[in-house]
Amino acid sequence: MSDLFWHFHSGVLLFKSITQQNVEKVKGSEYFLKSLYFDNIFFHRLYLLYNHWGMQFLVYAFIVIDLALAIFEDPAVIPLPIWATTMIEIVCLSAFGFRLVHYAKVIPLERFWKDPKNICIIVIILLSLVDIIIYWLLKAIGLFAVRWSRVLRPLLLVNITEGRQLRRALRSIRNALPQILCVFLLFMFSVFMFSLLALKLFVKRGLTTTDGDAYFTSYLEIVFDLYVLVTTANSPDVMMPAYNSSVFFALFFFIYILINTYIFNSVFLAIVYNNYKKYLKQEVRQLVKVKRHKMVQAFELLQEKKGEETVVTQASWNQLVRLVQPDISNAHRELLWSVSDNSKKGCIGKGAFVQLPDLLNMQVTIEKAEQPPLQTLLPPLYLSIPSRLVCRMVRHRLFVYTYDLITLVNAVFICLDEENLLIANTEWVFLALYLLEILLKLYTFKPRTFFSRHKFWNWFDTIIVISPLIAMIINSVVKSEGYTSRQILDIVFILRIVRLIRVVDRIKRVGVIINTLIKMGPTMLTFGQLIVVVYYVFAMVGMELFKGKIHFFDVKSTHPDKAFCGNPLLKNSSFAKHNYCKNNFNNVISSFILLLELTVVNQCGFTAVTHVSARIFFVLFHIVIVIIIINIFIAFVLEAFFVEYTMEKSDLQSSLEKKIKELELGIKQYVSDNFLVIINDQLMVKYQLLRVYSYPCIISY
Amino acid sequence: MSDLFWHFHSGVLLFKSITQQNVEKVKGSEYFLKSLYFDNIFFHRLYLLYNHWGMQFLVYAFIVIDLALAIFEDPAVIPLPIWATTMIEIVCLSAFGFRLVHYAKVIPLERFWKDPKNICIIVIILLSLVDIIIYWLLKAIGLFAVRWSRVLRPLLLVNITEGRQLRRALRSIRNALPQILCVFLLFMFSVFMFSLLALKLFVKRGLTTTDGDAYFTSYLEIVFDLYVLVTTANSPDVMMPAYNSSVFFALFFFIYILINTYIFNSVFLAIVYNNYKKYLKQEVRQLVKVKRHKMVQAFELLQEKKGEETVVTQASWNQLVRLVQPDISNAHRELLWSVSDNSKKGCIGKGAFVQLPDLLNMQVTIEKAEQPPLQTLLPPLYLSIPSRLVCRMVRHRLFVYTYDLITLVNAVFICLDEENLLIANTEWVFLALYLLEILLKLYTFKPRTFFSRHKFWNWFDTIIVISPLIAMIINSVVKSEGYTSRQILDIVFILRIVRLIRVVDRIKRVGVIINTLIKMGPTMLTFGQLIVVVYYVFAMVGMELFKGKIHFFDVKSTHPDKAFCGNPLLKNSSFAKHNYCKNNFNNVISSFILLLELTVVNQCGFTAVTHVSARIFFVLFHIVIVIIIINIFIAFVLEAFFVEYTMEKSDLQSSLEKKIKELELGIKQYVSDNFLVIINDQLMVKYQLLRVYSYPCIISY
Repeated sequence: MSDLFWHFHSGVLLFKSITQQNVEKVKGSEYFLKSLYFDNIFFHRLYLLYNHWGMQFLVYAFIVIDLALAIFEDPAVIPLPIWATTMIEIVCLSAFGFRLVHYAKVIPLERFWKDPKNICIIVIILLSLVDIIIYWLLKAIGLFAVRWSRVLRPLLLVNITEGRQLRRALRSIRNALPQILCVFLLFMFSVFMFSLLALKLFVKRGLTTTDGDAYFTSYLEIVFDLYVLVTTANSPDVMMPAYNSSVFFALFFFIYILINTYIFNSVFLAIVYNNYKKYLKQEVRQLVKVKRHKMVQAFELLQEKKGEETVVTQASWNQLVRLVQPDISNAHRELLWSVSDNSKKGCIGKGAFVQLPDLLNMQVTIEKAEQPPLQTLLPPLYLSIPSRLVCRMVRHRLFVYTYDLITLVNAVFICLDEENLLIANTEWVFLALYLLEILLKLYTFKPRTFFSRHKFWNWFDTIIVISPLIAMIINSVVKSEGYTSRQILDIVFILRIVRLIRVVDRIKRVGVIINTLIKMGPTMLTFGQLIVVVYYVFAMVGMELFKGKIHFFDVKSTHPDKAFCGNPLLKNSSFAKHNYCKNNFNNVISSFILLLELTVVNQCGFTAVTHVSARIFFVLFHIVIVIIIINIFIAFVLEAFFVEYTMEKSDLQSSLEKKIKELELGIKQYVSDNFLVIINDQLMVKYQLLRVYSYPCIISY
Repeated sequence: MSDLFWHFHSGVLLFKSITQQNVEKVKGSEYFLKSLYFDNIFFHRLYLLYNHWGMQFLVYAFIVIDLALAIFEDPAVIPLPIWATTMIEIVCLSAFGFRLVHYAKVIPLERFWKDPKNICIIVIILLSLVDIIIYWLLKAIGLFAVRWSRVLRPLLLVNITEGRQLRRALRSIRNALPQILCVFLLFMFSVFMFSLLALKLFVKRGLTTTDGDAYFTSYLEIVFDLYVLVTTANSPDVMMPAYNSSVFFALFFFIYILINTYIFNSVFLAIVYNNYKKYLKQEVRQLVKVKRHKMVQAFELLQEKKGEETVVTQASWNQLVRLVQPDISNAHRELLWSVSDNSKKGCIGKGAFVQLPDLLNMQVTIEKAEQPPLQTLLPPLYLSIPSRLVCRMVRHRLFVYTYDLITLVNAVFICLDEENLLIANTEWVFLALYLLEILLKLYTFKPRTFFSRHKFWNWFDTIIVISPLIAMIINSVVKSEGYTSRQILDIVFILRIVRLIRVVDRIKRVGVIINTLIKMGPTMLTFGQLIVVVYYVFAMVGMELFKGKIHFFDVKSTHPDKAFCGNPLLKNSSFAKHNYCKNNFNNVISSFILLLELTVVNQCGFTAVTHVSARIFFVLFHIVIVIIIINIFIAFVLEAFFVEYTMEKSDLQSSLEKKIKELELGIKQYVSDNFLVIINDQLMVKYQLLRVYSYPCIISY
């Protein structure tokens, strides 16, 4: 149960939980071990190749290319001939095909055909090919043709082996759907009821909107207007004609907003959140079960008889770990073994063996407690009194405060008028100061410590300081003295103000928030992918439906159609008046930006240029994005924060602490052997509180 | 711990928890018992009078009058002479004063002076009097005077004895404030950073908005615009000029919206929600402690020696219950005693005595299993075969389904054109059918069962059916055949479609949601009060700052200033163009409606007519309402739903079930005595699942 708790929480913290990756690895390794036993060298190599990062990278690259084709296909941002895009697409499809064949070779065939994700990829590839053939045939005989299979492309992202985070997110949505549907039903019922009331109330009053149109006369119009009011997009415009006619009508809108905007939105969130939590728990439970099962299988393959017990010897254990994670050092492996083999018998039982994925999950960074390079090169100089003084100064608290102050002053200078040459030049002074800081730190600490993977702020500082230098060099080499290049430099300078966050970060409460936000970063990528999938599908459909209906004319253009976005139907519409012409579906980039705007506020002028039924598209998009995906996003943020708060509170009891304590024994053991162990990632929580990783001066004892 | 769990959940379900009311009662009763011991009849009567519902009603009436004065004071909806409003205010203030003196008489004086809420009321009364005097003095010498004490009026709502729910809500907000402040700091930091970036990016591009104004040139303007973008009010307008100039600028706004709208809003919710839960737990824990302490004190007052034990006899227990809750029946009290005195010793120990408030909380409705009135009056007729057939029919499932179908057909008819006389007249057929349903049910069941307090839908049906009849009668009596009176009838007809909810309610999942929503009703009142307090304060300040700046001209008016809301500064502004003139602070009602609009979407034209600093008022309002109060509201809805879902799941384990089981023994015991016990309100959860209370046919066994 405590294990489940731990996995549940780590699963929340890192949706892309490392645990899960290792389950996959162990899944593979079990099969892999079999292959070793059957001495199949060819299979062995094939398996390693399939799991090679290069291959995974290639798959993603091909997916990106395949998705990016929308930029070059009609309606295109950069038009390319159709034969070229078709060629590229066929190359991509073959690449996916090869990858699939490769996958079929490294896992048992019956398992391959049972897996829906493989079937999906096959179907997608076949449908795409059929679509290409039909398209060319229709083109050949001069008929109108649509590349409808483009909608399927983002589904590849979901169905590749590496897309398991995305699949999990989608499964979570699918599980929540029945309940969401119920509330949605109720919600629509309420909207229809209120619309009926509105119709009865307003239809005969002869009210008009500011545009002079009849107000609230058609039932379906009212339903749509009130639906949009839920998104608050047309508030208070939709209410004004009624309110102008009588104060009491405001009451109608008040009740409507209370029920449909506030209460129903909260209920949607409650349901999505509840399902998210429930599903996450189930998934983690399942993961733990699968992992245990696989590990028991692996144990049975590796086990040897020793007296009455069946055990795994250190030799086979070492071999396994070397195969599963070839990148970990010997010292690290020894540490893990010493944790598993507590009593130093040279072999471990089933219980200890099953823990292996957990041990591998705890990313342990082993740093040799080596001296700074200068100390090795020129010991007398490094250990001289002035040098020691510098080191002491850098390690001192005041050093940090001084740089906080410098950052503050820098912020003030940036806000001042940049026209002033003196102020513009102070930038270089600040840059020099920051550079000095980095050099001093590098002098005092080992570069490897300073730039270790989890020292977010050190990396951040360095990039922020180095990038303007690089920008300047490129600038003077290219000799372009345009406004934009100067501006890019400005922006790089400004980014340095983000250093101020480090000052705020020192307030404990704020620190927890910032660190939670930073930790959520990787998981956000899953949401990013999810949103790309949904956006891409809607963009493809939207482009087919609405392309070319609305035109954007450049600011300087004097085209006569500019005032109504090139479509006479938009004459005098508020869409044209607000200059929204660039919000169109004329190419994939505009489509994405328009969909982003629709995510924030659902507003559109496309019914005017096409048909009222176009609203279905926009309402559908709103339901999918706002009601489902945004709510899952909020649920994720809420859960991440609650876990953070809970961890803070139940410090001593949580199993997390136990693991740290277990491993702290390991640390002491190894510190004498000239090793320093830093446990990061999942155990970061603890170290955040100690504020270890942002201040290298504290940890390098 | 299980007790705490139970209280915690019941506290969530009914924020206005009955438990708490009983704590207050018991608090009083302990003191009251003392008075009985000291034989102080005068004090006795005074205490009863203070807690009389009539007095409490009077206090609320005076508060409503006091608050409603804003309607008659300048700027007034209905102007009254100043002397009249002042007179009324003084009457109200004296009423509050009297109530306070009364309170001071029934509780110990040292406790009275220690209580900050009493001090608050005294200060409010004194400040109001001082304000009135200053106002009249200034008026007398012809100077400008402001009735600033009007801002204090809503605080009375918080500080009266009965306002404890509101005080609790405010305490919860106060506790969350430090954390909210931290995130707000971070959020503002981010807004300022992005504004700086925007300034550097756009200042020299010479972009213009659709109105032709310079775009993003002043730093503070940018900060405000980007702040408003967080509320999504000016999306996508604020982005369009930049987006029109280059597609890449959309990226800036995308990142801004992602961070500041989505992430920070979720973080605010997470913090408010976390604090809400934490605080609720603390409060409930405290309540349980206080209750126990008070009950122990009461026990010590009532205890008698019986052998070695100290006990409370049934006689004193009965006396206490009769005093504390005079309205419960003897049968009910006997039931409670039998639960307390399990072993039938005629007296109870401390443990059983302390449970008393919990027992009193379980609202038990005792219904005599009496026969329908007709059966008593005319047994042969009621028990005849046709009559029995009718009863069987009414109790049958098909009867319910038939009426669901009728409601559906009714809904279709309402949607049809009402111009058609035939369709208009069908309304009366439906009304007759509904009336018939109620009469049949009343015939079959006891009227008392049908109209018992917790049968929400029966009450609802009856009101919906009876009200059009009453409306018709009034209509024909007054002989007004205007459009509005006909319309009111229409609306009453439409409300009947809400009956359709009952059809949906039968789907289990939807039923849970609807019932949770209905149960949240009473607690919403606390939020309602909270919002009234905040709105009133902002309305008073807003009225002093902005009254008369913007004028509304009637739709038919042809006043030359109509095009710019009577203020030349608004010429050609989008505020005037959208015809927002009625969104002003010219009287308290418009102010409230305007504030409601600001709650939904923060948009205003008041900086144009006054000063840029007016924005502070609007931003402050947004922070208080949207960031704090709306989030607490969402947290409340979330928690209510989670409790509901948890209850559904852990049916058997929850202590709730145990209590029901405990009491079901009681039921059996009493059923033989011709009593039927229905446990409602807090135990409703159970009965909802059984769907008892909406179908009287099932329960009246």
